[in-house]
Amino acid sequence: MLEAVKVGVLGLGTVGSGAASILQRNADEIARRAGRGICISIACVRDLKKQRDCDIAGMTLTADPEKVVSDPDVKIVLELMGGTDDALKLVLMAIDHGKHVVTANKALIAFHGNEIFQRAQDKGVAVAFEAAVAGGIPIIKALREGLAANAILWLAGVINGTGNFILTEMCDKGRDFDEVLKEAQRLGYAEADPSFDIQGTDAAHKLTILASVAFGVPLQFEKVHTEGITGISGIDVAYASELGYRIKHLGIARRTDSGLELRVHPALIPCSRLIANVDGVMNAVIVKADALGQSLYYGPGAGAEPTGSAVVADLVDVVRALTTDPENRVPHLAFQPDSLSDIPVLSIDEVYTAYYLRIHVLDRPGVLADVTRIFAAHKISIEAIIQKEQDARAASVPIIILTHRVNEKNMKGAIAEIEELDVVTSRITLIRLETLI
Amino acid sequence: MLEAVKVGVLGLGTVGSGAASILQRNADEIARRAGRGICISIACVRDLKKQRDCDIAGMTLTADPEKVVSDPDVKIVLELMGGTDDALKLVLMAIDHGKHVVTANKALIAFHGNEIFQRAQDKGVAVAFEAAVAGGIPIIKALREGLAANAILWLAGVINGTGNFILTEMCDKGRDFDEVLKEAQRLGYAEADPSFDIQGTDAAHKLTILASVAFGVPLQFEKVHTEGITGISGIDVAYASELGYRIKHLGIARRTDSGLELRVHPALIPCSRLIANVDGVMNAVIVKADALGQSLYYGPGAGAEPTGSAVVADLVDVVRALTTDPENRVPHLAFQPDSLSDIPVLSIDEVYTAYYLRIHVLDRPGVLADVTRIFAAHKISIEAIIQKEQDARAASVPIIILTHRVNEKNMKGAIAEIEELDVVTSRITLIRLETLI
Repeated sequence: MLEAVKVGVLGLGTVGSGAASILQRNADEIARRAGRGICISIACVRDLKKQRDCDIAGMTLTADPEKVVSDPDVKIVLELMGGTDDALKLVLMAIDHGKHVVTANKALIAFHGNEIFQRAQDKGVAVAFEAAVAGGIPIIKALREGLAANAILWLAGVINGTGNFILTEMCDKGRDFDEVLKEAQRLGYAEADPSFDIQGTDAAHKLTILASVAFGVPLQFEKVHTEGITGISGIDVAYASELGYRIKHLGIARRTDSGLELRVHPALIPCSRLIANVDGVMNAVIVKADALGQSLYYGPGAGAEPTGSAVVADLVDVVRALTTDPENRVPHLAFQPDSLSDIPVLSIDEVYTAYYLRIHVLDRPGVLADVTRIFAAHKISIEAIIQKEQDARAASVPIIILTHRVNEKNMKGAIAEIEELDVVTSRITLIRLETLI
Repeated sequence: MLEAVKVGVLGLGTVGSGAASILQRNADEIARRAGRGICISIACVRDLKKQRDCDIAGMTLTADPEKVVSDPDVKIVLELMGGTDDALKLVLMAIDHGKHVVTANKALIAFHGNEIFQRAQDKGVAVAFEAAVAGGIPIIKALREGLAANAILWLAGVINGTGNFILTEMCDKGRDFDEVLKEAQRLGYAEADPSFDIQGTDAAHKLTILASVAFGVPLQFEKVHTEGITGISGIDVAYASELGYRIKHLGIARRTDSGLELRVHPALIPCSRLIANVDGVMNAVIVKADALGQSLYYGPGAGAEPTGSAVVADLVDVVRALTTDPENRVPHLAFQPDSLSDIPVLSIDEVYTAYYLRIHVLDRPGVLADVTRIFAAHKISIEAIIQKEQDARAASVPIIILTHRVNEKNMKGAIAEIEELDVVTSRITLIRLETLI
């Protein structure tokens, strides 16, 4: 057997320790697959004395990351330090030293992937990032290789475990957002500053990457329309459930004749769809492709070992490609770099989707006529309209409306007009509704 | 761009036409991914004059398969003719001519894969077979590459669309097996001779392949314990549903300390599991892996374009690997050929699982005591025991029993003894119950 490939690691935190533990525990299994061993020879850590969750015997520990990226014995650098500034600098240094790179850093790829891949191409090295999206689910590989025959039409994913845990608890147990968020923080699912998760930024990083490998477009994080889950209230979760829907936080990328939709927001999904039943911290991505039709990929979206699983799978891929000429490797973004598409990204106003609306009105004759007249004027066709029972304490009655697919700009115009009506007592709640067919 | 790679096809039936249509329709998309075009230059068909479901312009049609496998311009041979004898002969000839091979033929791989892969290794060519299992779902790639970091613990799949269609209709609509089978035949889901599907042979072919790439064992079709769905009656589907379970036809491969379980049979699955809700002709495979945990892969398990999607994805992979030295390609069975495991396959008597039993007894005092005494004597622990209402027309009462996990041999011993009891009026119905945790 060939000698083991030496790997240098930047960061031995949760994911780094997970990857190291897997490489140690499954060393035989991995060598049986890859045809040679893979071992971490050097790791950069901030605190050299800190206790680690993995066995560090055989590793040189250093506090100097440049030692890792320039180590002549190291063939592959694992970037697991997080953040974007230092990570970018070190990844580019590693590439300049002719190292291949494996990273789990979604923000790094979403923001700087175009630059990183260009540099890697110039230097003839590979940069792999399966762990950056949906933890251990091999979704990048599925899109980039498994579905290579297809024109991808759209994809939709539950790609933030923290947000999905919160929505699942709200939906299944009728709990409040704030209470569940506190529990998620206690359980370690959510950070002390949970804004990246609950405001959708984390999902937008991942969607940026998914869209690029699905459609062969450059990474365009700044063009993703991003809404979080902080506006979702228990009452909408309950009404959605009554109507046969569950609310999930989705990342959606869709190719239309006029451009690409890139959007992250909560959405009602029919309960009968598998993805509506992806609960807790699990992730799933549905892909609609022209030849295959719909396929779905489900698994743990975070955690030391699930993410480590994706990191080590990338290592095995890179080890196999060490002797491949760069032109014959799978391109970083699935499509040859000179064949990326410049299809424009649509603004949210240009998106077509269905909607759930909750409108609070005074219980007077003619209210429904006023509301439906405005919808008709904006060419919005209504699928269902349900007047709920009046809350004894409230002066107003909630009306729930489900619409057919319509242009978002029309919808906003209608809502503005309806909110002007005297009988409408508060701001209208609007949640998109996706049938995912 | 490099010149297009020429492919020779054996068989332009459903899957062949599907693959050809995809290669034509998505030619640009595929070239943008692969870095070069892929085109079918020659195809062997039985009837040269038959109308085809794909555009045959640019293809030489021949009735002589040897012309395809020996064509000097052809780099890759697509074997889509089905059957095992001629297919084996032609695939080996293609390999001997230095051609790479892509096949959708599960029976061929399950029966002759070991020989084919050995020959391919000797000749330094690749044989790809993603389309042989679960249609267009990239499950072979997921197991072989996406989960390469993991020791796979078990996998369980709904991998026969016809059988799943029948069970879904029985479960959702209370329809009879025979009636649904006839409809499946009318819809083209089931063959005129449906025995391969309903007796589990097709699923056993696929399970054989899945187990090999999951555990790195040789293909051992003859060791798969195979039961079909012909013994499932509407009454058991209904009782299972009342108890919160759905009956699915599963292929299960599990690594235990004493050996490998390889079994295809119907099973009760808790309704809350995603795979219990995989309906109609769709397929899904759950994989439990040591680092990743559970992941699931779902999609269309059959059909011209879904299967063609997997065939063409394999073509793209092979095209990319044309210049790779053979030692660095992904091994055919995921593990290096000299590192396959000789872990023994367990007989069904050695398997541990839970059970659902339906026992018809005379409604007399002491019956339950007799039955439970026998279970206790065979070390079988009971999870639930439910006496159903007596059928007015019948002299007997059905008792439904759910057991905890137990060795199958013990269970058979207990059943034989219980069937000897005077109060037991008919053969006991036994269906395995899988919690898939």
